[in-house]
Amino acid sequence: MNLNQENTTVGFIGLGAMGAGMAGCLLRKGWRVHVYMRRPEVQAAFIYAGAHAHDSAADLGRACDAVVLSLPNADAVETVLFGEKGLAQELKPGTYVIDTSTIAAASAQEFGKRLAARDVSFLDAPVSGGQEGAAAGTLACMVGGDAVQVEACRGLLSAFSQNIFHVGPSGAGQTVKACNQVAVAGAMLGVADALALARAQGVDPDVMRDVLLQGTARSVPLEKHAPRIIQENFEPGFRARLMRKDLRLALDAARAADTSLAAAPVAERLLDAMCEQDRGDWDWCGLALEVGKPGDGARES
Amino acid sequence: MNLNQENTTVGFIGLGAMGAGMAGCLLRKGWRVHVYMRRPEVQAAFIYAGAHAHDSAADLGRACDAVVLSLPNADAVETVLFGEKGLAQELKPGTYVIDTSTIAAASAQEFGKRLAARDVSFLDAPVSGGQEGAAAGTLACMVGGDAVQVEACRGLLSAFSQNIFHVGPSGAGQTVKACNQVAVAGAMLGVADALALARAQGVDPDVMRDVLLQGTARSVPLEKHAPRIIQENFEPGFRARLMRKDLRLALDAARAADTSLAAAPVAERLLDAMCEQDRGDWDWCGLALEVGKPGDGARES
Repeated sequence: MNLNQENTTVGFIGLGAMGAGMAGCLLRKGWRVHVYMRRPEVQAAFIYAGAHAHDSAADLGRACDAVVLSLPNADAVETVLFGEKGLAQELKPGTYVIDTSTIAAASAQEFGKRLAARDVSFLDAPVSGGQEGAAAGTLACMVGGDAVQVEACRGLLSAFSQNIFHVGPSGAGQTVKACNQVAVAGAMLGVADALALARAQGVDPDVMRDVLLQGTARSVPLEKHAPRIIQENFEPGFRARLMRKDLRLALDAARAADTSLAAAPVAERLLDAMCEQDRGDWDWCGLALEVGKPGDGARES
Repeated sequence: MNLNQENTTVGFIGLGAMGAGMAGCLLRKGWRVHVYMRRPEVQAAFIYAGAHAHDSAADLGRACDAVVLSLPNADAVETVLFGEKGLAQELKPGTYVIDTSTIAAASAQEFGKRLAARDVSFLDAPVSGGQEGAAAGTLACMVGGDAVQVEACRGLLSAFSQNIFHVGPSGAGQTVKACNQVAVAGAMLGVADALALARAQGVDPDVMRDVLLQGTARSVPLEKHAPRIIQENFEPGFRARLMRKDLRLALDAARAADTSLAAAPVAERLLDAMCEQDRGDWDWCGLALEVGKPGDGARES
């Protein structure tokens, strides 16, 4: 049975920068939303907007037919699901857990198996599009799981997602999210290199960018981030420490499969350098300031 | 005075994969073209198409008001200009040399100074767009040099270039070309990482690519090269050994300015590995086969 506004009470756990926007979309579009969070000041705003609040994840679980999670990491998901007063013990058979957190594919698969034993469906459904996309309901959502279950949740997901991609079985959503992050990291490194080279050679970086946008080097980092790098405006956006977390998930997955990556380890190192300089809350394009520093040796030999 | 078809005899030296297409554009569009090359079989085709052939660069130089070069490297440019029976000794004052070769900015600046002493103008004008773009006259041309001189050559350049960018003084064209190459190399590394990760995790690479094309990881390598990598079709295209040459120019320029780059050294290493396996004439996107190999250590530590 497909979830819809008549037959579904939706729980939402994790009302941070992303989750608050997504839960807001569900409320605005008329879904019955129940929330649980540890920070009462945020909860108050949602109660005002029409959400029903609970004192624990377990309590929320008893009331809901589907629960959306938006949490910072797999440990937080584990705690919400299986910790004290956790969701899992209270969810009815046939309930859906839709995890929009970015975690390891292996963690998603493990949570899926443990919940399947209770006849609860688990979909990994990480998103991209940032806070703005979450608030506007224009996220892209990469979903891993059983096709019938994904279809059942499509209406709910579309409350906050403009594009919903079913990309494969359990864990595949997380893998495609990781692929997205390593691909955009590579493009960002290329932009950082180009800006460092232009600077070193005394060429106007804005002129260089205008030319590159017309050709094969065109990319989203060149279009959106290069102007911010040139102006040294590093207000987030997407924070360096969060991009580092995402790349570490990708690198851990690759390492577990004995697979080497090319761009991701370099990007991780630059983001490490940012975090060590207390720049973890800058936009991640600030990694460009770490490129071009003298003394590193321009060429590995 | 602007160069036009009435007042200008154009010399063309370097009728390789790129140069033959560009010289063909000049001929088709009605310019008087004189050629010189060492390979008589190619020369014959151009004579048939209406070009006038010479026995030496010096001989060609005596007949021409502007000379376009399309040569593999700075040594070849140096030989054509200043070697035995070279151009420089025979060029009339006021002549233009337009160098579409990809060489170091520093070399271009040096050639420019030496020719300026003879009242000959030298523009660095490297191109991008590949053999297809050269044949069709749709190249992008990045020009460094004096603004008045660049304007004088715009009509001639437009015979083979769809977009002509004056990006700064002597050498700036080469710098922007180098910026383009490092930027696209970074994006390619990101694509290679994403494909390696999808493969390692058992996710369909075509599905992954379709999703990434909709978002922030969209890039030309993802659009044009990823399908070829997935199908293992490495027919050039742009050859690995030529991309390696271009990246080495960028890395040398960066090193001379004590500037480190992030993506370019990694791409160079992967292209080295291709060349060591006799894959230098494969399309450069074949570097993706070097990513994901086991044992390399996915994560630098």
